Amino acid sequence: MDTYVAVVGPGEAREEEVAAAERVGEGLARGGAVVVCGGLGGVMEAACRGAKRAGGTTVGILPGLDRASANPFVDVAIPTGLGEARNALVVRAADILIAVGGAYGTLSEIALALKTGKPVLGLGSWAIDGVVAVEDAERAVATALGS
Amino acid sequence: MDTYVAVVGPGEAREEEVAAAERVGEGLARGGAVVVCGGLGGVMEAACRGAKRAGGTTVGILPGLDRASANPFVDVAIPTGLGEARNALVVRAADILIAVGGAYGTLSEIALALKTGKPVLGLGSWAIDGVVAVEDAERAVATALGS
Amino acid sequence: MDTYVAVVGPGEAREEEVAAAERVGEGLARGGAVVVCGGLGGVMEAACRGAKRAGGTTVGILPGLDRASANPFVDVAIPTGLGEARNALVVRAADILIAVGGAYGTLSEIALALKTGKPVLGLGSWAIDGVVAVEDAERAVATALGS
Amino acid sequence: MDTYVAVVGPGEAREEEVAAAERVGEGLARGGAVVVCGGLGGVMEAACRGAKRAGGTTVGILPGLDRASANPFVDVAIPTGLGEARNALVVRAADILIAVGGAYGTLSEIALALKTGKPVLGLGSWAIDGVVAVEDAERAVATALGS
Repeated sequence: MDTYVAVVGPGEAREEEVAAAERVGEGLARGGAVVVCGGLGGVMEAACRGAKRAGGTTVGILPGLDRASANPFVDVAIPTGLGEARNALVVRAADILIAVGGAYGTLSEIALALKTGKPVLGLGSWAIDGVVAVEDAERAVATALGS
Repeated sequence: MDTYVAVVGPGEAREEEVAAAERVGEGLARGGAVVVCGGLGGVMEAACRGAKRAGGTTVGILPGLDRASANPFVDVAIPTGLGEARNALVVRAADILIAVGGAYGTLSEIALALKTGKPVLGLGSWAIDGVVAVEDAERAVATALGS
Repeated sequence: MDTYVAVVGPGEAREEEVAAAERVGEGLARGGAVVVCGGLGGVMEAACRGAKRAGGTTVGILPGLDRASANPFVDVAIPTGLGEARNALVVRAADILIAVGGAYGTLSEIALALKTGKPVLGLGSWAIDGVVAVEDAERAVATALGS
Repeated sequence: MDTYVAVVGPGEAREEEVAAAERVGEGLARGGAVVVCGGLGGVMEAACRGAKRAGGTTVGILPGLDRASANPFVDVAIPTGLGEARNALVVRAADILIAVGGAYGTLSEIALALKTGKPVLGLGSWAIDGVVAVEDAERAVATALGS
């Protein structure tokens, strides 16, 4: 069965977060994982762009009702109309989370993942007890895919 | 942008429902549509099996938390943990619904789709005002894809 | 433990539906039941108005994020931000449903209730297999409260 | 319009958290606020117990489908069947959050509240940027009710 990895992070991201998310997405796709995200811009878009460059599959679980709000690198766009409550679905759709940067929405995803015992890797993200800080995108991917 | 068509119907389906759902899935995939469903057996599994035979993409939005409960023809499996409340997400993920047979779960999806103005085609399904009854799988696909 | 009865029906209701819903709400409150509804106007408001006249408790589970959208007879207003997906919560919050009139939103609630084996009484509502048609508000209340 | 204050915190709470939550609940009820919580034990139960002692109104938004899982001090129990995804509803139902202690579930509620700009007061809770730490229950209540 495929591994689904959620790449979570802010929709308005800093340059180095975008670069890291893109490398994370690319590495995950190379490793055969499905990339799940919230479907919008910033870290989410960068992860999808990286994954598509490597021929991977990307899933965007959107807060709104409009599929067109998905970034152009989302293969399967799921409009939920749940607003931020869709964060719980991003977490449930994933086996592992990689948080890149992150504001409050990201923190809610981290918390929900840890609550249900899913591993969370952090790349310049919240230093919450339970989050495994990783140094760079390559380390994040290797840890997530267990190699 | 891709057209997403939800194929909805009972998890325990009659032989002719299974056969119809399979032809619907196959036709949709040929026409380039993404097949969305509730991810489980019966009509859902048949639609996915048909779609995969034609090389299509299938999405299963599952009621439970376990991805392994998806039928083997689901490409992208989204465990929601929402129970029957996930029916609203199946509807929101789709542009059009094709209902094949159907019990109460199917009826809730039909109602939610009609409520939000999405077209619903019925193949031996609920004769609710607003549902467009179609004769066979081929007609359902042609109507859904507007050809 | 209290009995929770959902009174479901259109937000834009006909005069006789409003009158019936009001008597239903009043009767339920007299019988000690908590009245649950979708919190908006029409049948929902009428049921709450009736219940408050008899000193009952009313709960409105709202589709939007704004508590102020609740009708003035709701005691406890729960803004969900889930849109029509909140219909599943109205059903889950109730032990029994009484449907008064009804369009597609109501139909989705009826279907979800029947799917999970909850009794549904219909007052001029959808003639769906499984809905127990009742003649008037008094009969609906008596049947719901088992007296 | 009533003020709804969510009191969030762990279901298995330490003695001083229970004592604080109880005083918070009591103070909120005295101030006329409705106490919202996740409906279960620990901090949630203590807040409800305190509120009921002062004659207040308590609402429990439950993760499961069974109303009987609510603690005995919940007036209005809303079973959602959404699991931890119901945390978003606790936040949406409230105008302000008071977090007492807290593990990951609480953190997800704090994050969702801050994301949508709702004030969060913390009593021995997560020291997240945006959480206003308060010294004791009385200060929490006074700050929440703006007096």
